[in-house]
Amino acid sequence: MLTLYHSPGSCSRASHIALQEAGAAFSLQTVDFASAEQRSPEYHEINPKGRVPALAADRGIITETPAILLYIAQTHPDQLLAPLNDAFELARMQSFNNYLCATVHVAHAHSRRPERWADDESARSNMRRKAPEVMADCFQLIETQLLDSPWVLGRDYSVADAYLFTISQWLPFHDLDITSYPQVAEHAARMQKRPAVMAAITRETS
Amino acid sequence: MLTLYHSPGSCSRASHIALQEAGAAFSLQTVDFASAEQRSPEYHEINPKGRVPALAADRGIITETPAILLYIAQTHPDQLLAPLNDAFELARMQSFNNYLCATVHVAHAHSRRPERWADDESARSNMRRKAPEVMADCFQLIETQLLDSPWVLGRDYSVADAYLFTISQWLPFHDLDITSYPQVAEHAARMQKRPAVMAAITRETS
Repeated sequence: MLTLYHSPGSCSRASHIALQEAGAAFSLQTVDFASAEQRSPEYHEINPKGRVPALAADRGIITETPAILLYIAQTHPDQLLAPLNDAFELARMQSFNNYLCATVHVAHAHSRRPERWADDESARSNMRRKAPEVMADCFQLIETQLLDSPWVLGRDYSVADAYLFTISQWLPFHDLDITSYPQVAEHAARMQKRPAVMAAITRETS
Repeated sequence: MLTLYHSPGSCSRASHIALQEAGAAFSLQTVDFASAEQRSPEYHEINPKGRVPALAADRGIITETPAILLYIAQTHPDQLLAPLNDAFELARMQSFNNYLCATVHVAHAHSRRPERWADDESARSNMRRKAPEVMADCFQLIETQLLDSPWVLGRDYSVADAYLFTISQWLPFHDLDITSYPQVAEHAARMQKRPAVMAAITRETS
């Protein structure tokens, strides 16, 4: 039995969708950001980084979205959630997920959590101001260079789709219109029709 | 035949060490940061992100260090550079590599490339000032929570060791002393004795 430590609407939604797609047996444990539960000693026992997602599996805790997504795909091979038997295609998937994690999510975090990287309020304001421009550059690159169709990797759906969808839903926070990125917008519309995506969103918002 | 696009001493060194460990046939192509070659139209054809590393393989280009490292391990299975047959251990490795990429390298980049996230010079100065504190926190977490012994994953060497070693060599840039992190320091000393590591460093610095 798996437990996903998550916060609704955060990057943990990608792992939540992947678990739904996998048909995995899992429970969902909400980490309450409003009360800073992610910084509590109890949660630090789960994930000393104080972040979500964290996936508790039989043998221990897994953190970091690209690692969790690959683990879910590997442990549910019949669901075909990653190109597990093709090292090059798998590298494409991991490369895409890594870009979302280390560049796009980081760009977003400069708006939400600038205190991670600067102490002065004026510096933090400056970072918040620039974040939409950096996010726009990231999505322009995704739109024109990284995204295949109908899914991230082309013909075959993968956990990368769950991750892109999750982060694309943050564009309005930066006053960016998803329709400025037509392929990303079409991808999101396609995702919203998948039962696993609907199930994850319903569970996170109910 | 593989080609690694790299810059000496940068994060691409992890991929370089992994190629050496794998006994792979590869050529090394230096991207000259001094002349901003990474932003040239020619290099953007290789990697539109304008970063290193990029690994040119027969079927295309792979970017992002954690993806490249896994690809090298998967395509050279006899060299045992990753726990390829154990999804949980592989998730541990990918989680570690992802933390280096999305948190530790990002912390470092706030000193080297603050212009990515802020326009004002005062904001950039503020980010530069805080970077050593954030790097110190990261290495404290690695030292106390993430690092096993003698290698990152414990008994078995993996590409995660090449990546940790590469980033640990950046500590002096932040006026941080690696001996403040005894396990990280011992790990680096162990790494420096490996022929593949010596070969990579020699090739990058000669």
